[in-house]
Amino acid sequence: MPKLKALIEKPPRWLSGSGEEAELVLSSRVRIARNLDKRPFTHGAGARVLGEIRDETKTALEDCPSLAGAVVLDMDEISESDRLLLAERRLISREMAKNFVNRCLIVQPDEQLGVMINEEDHLRIQSFEPGFSLQSAFERIGGLDNEIDSRLCYAYSEELGYLTACPTNVGTGLRVSAMVHLPGLVHNKDIGQVLDGLRNIRLTVRGIQGEGSDIVGNLFQISNSITLGLSEEDTVRNIEGHVRKVLEFEKKARSVLLKKARSLLEDKIWRAHGILKTARVVSSKEAMSLISAVRLGIGLGVITDCSLGTLNELFIMVQPMHLQRLHDKVMKVEERDRARADYIREKLNGYK
Amino acid sequence: MPKLKALIEKPPRWLSGSGEEAELVLSSRVRIARNLDKRPFTHGAGARVLGEIRDETKTALEDCPSLAGAVVLDMDEISESDRLLLAERRLISREMAKNFVNRCLIVQPDEQLGVMINEEDHLRIQSFEPGFSLQSAFERIGGLDNEIDSRLCYAYSEELGYLTACPTNVGTGLRVSAMVHLPGLVHNKDIGQVLDGLRNIRLTVRGIQGEGSDIVGNLFQISNSITLGLSEEDTVRNIEGHVRKVLEFEKKARSVLLKKARSLLEDKIWRAHGILKTARVVSSKEAMSLISAVRLGIGLGVITDCSLGTLNELFIMVQPMHLQRLHDKVMKVEERDRARADYIREKLNGYK
Repeated sequence: MPKLKALIEKPPRWLSGSGEEAELVLSSRVRIARNLDKRPFTHGAGARVLGEIRDETKTALEDCPSLAGAVVLDMDEISESDRLLLAERRLISREMAKNFVNRCLIVQPDEQLGVMINEEDHLRIQSFEPGFSLQSAFERIGGLDNEIDSRLCYAYSEELGYLTACPTNVGTGLRVSAMVHLPGLVHNKDIGQVLDGLRNIRLTVRGIQGEGSDIVGNLFQISNSITLGLSEEDTVRNIEGHVRKVLEFEKKARSVLLKKARSLLEDKIWRAHGILKTARVVSSKEAMSLISAVRLGIGLGVITDCSLGTLNELFIMVQPMHLQRLHDKVMKVEERDRARADYIREKLNGYK
Repeated sequence: MPKLKALIEKPPRWLSGSGEEAELVLSSRVRIARNLDKRPFTHGAGARVLGEIRDETKTALEDCPSLAGAVVLDMDEISESDRLLLAERRLISREMAKNFVNRCLIVQPDEQLGVMINEEDHLRIQSFEPGFSLQSAFERIGGLDNEIDSRLCYAYSEELGYLTACPTNVGTGLRVSAMVHLPGLVHNKDIGQVLDGLRNIRLTVRGIQGEGSDIVGNLFQISNSITLGLSEEDTVRNIEGHVRKVLEFEKKARSVLLKKARSLLEDKIWRAHGILKTARVVSSKEAMSLISAVRLGIGLGVITDCSLGTLNELFIMVQPMHLQRLHDKVMKVEERDRARADYIREKLNGYK
């Protein structure tokens, strides 16, 4: 499918390693959940109705100026491995990769703005930014939200706000999150306390792949869980403030580590760099951990011969479906581990 | 001491990585034990007599053509750490580094021929060759032995042969050994069986530092333990034959490993290479193991950007006393681990 190919043959812009606090924040993401008025929620709709919702929504979205030039991908028209690849890229959910009939993705080629149709809600609109930039991500999504609002009739209650399939999204339907890189707090073991603190104030912490995913590469996605009784602007400000506090903790942890164990820390970073540049077999889990160490090395000024962007991209590009796509074939785990090592070496050495 | 400095500021020639079977045999060594007639053995001699033996022997040795240009080092005139350094270089025994009074070392600047005076025997003459070359080492030592014989009167019995302090050396007083690198047999776990086989035919197997030393870096010193009832020529031929068999086993092990687990083996080699080129802290034990892996890589043609000689030298040069000498100060373990990593990086990268 050429549309898909064009989309995935370059890395998403939100991995570029630019933006505020890029050394500590991989990316910022805002998403809103919306549903059409007088239509059953996705989980209660039969195939015919789902198809109608998809068609109606798609037509409206294709008309929105914010989505001019966007790629439209019907989930029933692409293979399962391509759906899983889109999930690795965070463009669709793993849930949607499995329940794909009458589902659709519309996404800008730079992958900064996208809409899932008939995921848990009729519309899941998401906006990405590189670095720590919740406000920009929020503004971009607001623009599209207004454009859709003037074309479709949202399910909305004066009392509750936007109505959603799951009660946890009712109200603003807004989820604001930052993907933060916290190797310092993991290393000094303060991470447990920090995560407990975040959960106590009703924030959610997840791994790089969202709900239910493991923490890999010391990457943590911090987001709000409350969507009711707080304005959208306050939600964004809130998360921004809490994430900033976490970033302060991480900076402190890094500086203490440098003071107390500079040699060992630098050694760990350099070894990770050396291994990534030479290894011939690398598992996914090990890759994440080594990339994390080198990424920390860039933050500390230890590693200067590769960019944050390159490492951010590696986090995504060395995942199984991405590697299979690259080689255009289904691969066994051992084969992927070799392909992963080859890919990383090529990226970090600048040659194969 | 300028004599010592001149000696140790370049690596010994027997580490050069040249010679037959250099990929599998680091070096060949032959040593003979000799004592003066009508003198008590070292352990039974008082300080005055030891001094007399030293002086008498030294004078004779300095007159030998084979030792023209040799460096003469009185053990009581150098520091303990320098004596330990000479032991790391295999020029004297660890025993002699501790019992140093009235002891002396005479050694050619290329370190291929040397004599310890008043070690366990009055004279311990040793000859080194790079690679597998027992015959050359034996011939060189024979020349010097004759020269000494015409200047001093050896303790010799028509019935037993040369008399020595320890009964295990009586007869030829000859020990012939090869330092072999057997990562393949260690990896496939056949090494235990091979070592048992060697011990069954009364051969001795030791680590790189001789008697009582651990096996590090997969380096094994294989030598005869019988000195009685076998001619010198037969002893050399014997060891040569047995070592050749071990080398065949090692070659077979390597080829099976390549067939069965090429990816994993190459990965291990490349990682070792990567770590040595980047690490900032490396313990002695880890260094030996990583150097061994890269050395195997050269043998297999996987690593092509560094020489056997460089790696052989590393085995010796990263030892504690050598590192301290390089920095001209006593160092704590942590400091040495950093200095070791620095030294290795410089050697393998060609720059600091």
